[in-house]
Amino acid sequence: MNFLEERILKDGIVLEGNVLKVDSFLNHQMDIQLMDQMGEEFFRRFSDKSITKVLTIESSGIAIACSVARCFGVPVVFAKKAKSINIDGEMYVAEVESFTHKNKNQVIVSKKFIGADDRVLIIDDFLANGCALQGLISITESAGATVMGLGVAIEKGFQIGGKVIRNLGYHLESLAIVEKMDAESGTVTFREQ
Amino acid sequence: MNFLEERILKDGIVLEGNVLKVDSFLNHQMDIQLMDQMGEEFFRRFSDKSITKVLTIESSGIAIACSVARCFGVPVVFAKKAKSINIDGEMYVAEVESFTHKNKNQVIVSKKFIGADDRVLIIDDFLANGCALQGLISITESAGATVMGLGVAIEKGFQIGGKVIRNLGYHLESLAIVEKMDAESGTVTFREQ
Repeated sequence: MNFLEERILKDGIVLEGNVLKVDSFLNHQMDIQLMDQMGEEFFRRFSDKSITKVLTIESSGIAIACSVARCFGVPVVFAKKAKSINIDGEMYVAEVESFTHKNKNQVIVSKKFIGADDRVLIIDDFLANGCALQGLISITESAGATVMGLGVAIEKGFQIGGKVIRNLGYHLESLAIVEKMDAESGTVTFREQ
Repeated sequence: MNFLEERILKDGIVLEGNVLKVDSFLNHQMDIQLMDQMGEEFFRRFSDKSITKVLTIESSGIAIACSVARCFGVPVVFAKKAKSINIDGEMYVAEVESFTHKNKNQVIVSKKFIGADDRVLIIDDFLANGCALQGLISITESAGATVMGLGVAIEKGFQIGGKVIRNLGYHLESLAIVEKMDAESGTVTFREQ
């Protein structure tokens, strides 16, 4: 079991409806040491990919993405969920459905910040139905850039997202893949990797 | 002139309506080295305050907050802009009006993550009318915790926020205070600090 799986067992809380709460260390309160440990682990897994940019989506992917980008010495770009008056000019747009919030958002990235030469590592905290990652893949490829890999902290292995992305041929690394959860007993079972 | 002021002059863009775009390095694409430099500077300015928690608001405050928190060796908590089905139990709520987006949001922090013993450093990227910071102050004090200080990257010195917060007696540090901007000439003038 790796450090993230151990932490999930220690501090994660399983709720009805296949909800795994990790808000005490990952996506509301954030343990910076854990972020950095994840950053180093993603760096190890993608170190041969000559990454030029880390792409994530607001908000809870940002902290992990920063820790990853520090290891690679490259900038982070985060996709924004709504049109801001501060984003002018042209932008790449993708539609993303949130599993957590049960709504759809357009996410946007300014065309200035991803170019055809970029070798992009996409980072997010959760992978469930895969919509967020697919939106980020779409934005990267619209720019003519290359998706060198995708890294997520926690994949819900019983949902379709991970399978779809791997079937499309992308190199996806999940630090913890939850195979099943049981709210009554509070147990979490991870896929052997 | 400090490192952030220099960077604003180099890469910031002044638009009509007192908009300062810093999206190439601060709040859309993010220069992680700059984030870390800001983190170290805030650590220097608040190092004697025995900070136990860094509080920020999604999304563009998160990266800076993480760099600050790393220096202090404490967790980050970020206030969320809308109710998430993943936040159960009780939470602190404040109403925040966005200068950028011209709308109001309720921001929430789970009561689990700020306690009466906490010595809180509030961090954000921009200070204009001060609504976001006031919301974070209100949340901190609702918890019975102490606001030990507030750190922002860029303060718009010609708007009311900084004055209000300083008049209330809080220790506010802004790395760059914009005194005036001119969209036609593209010039930015900083307050001497």
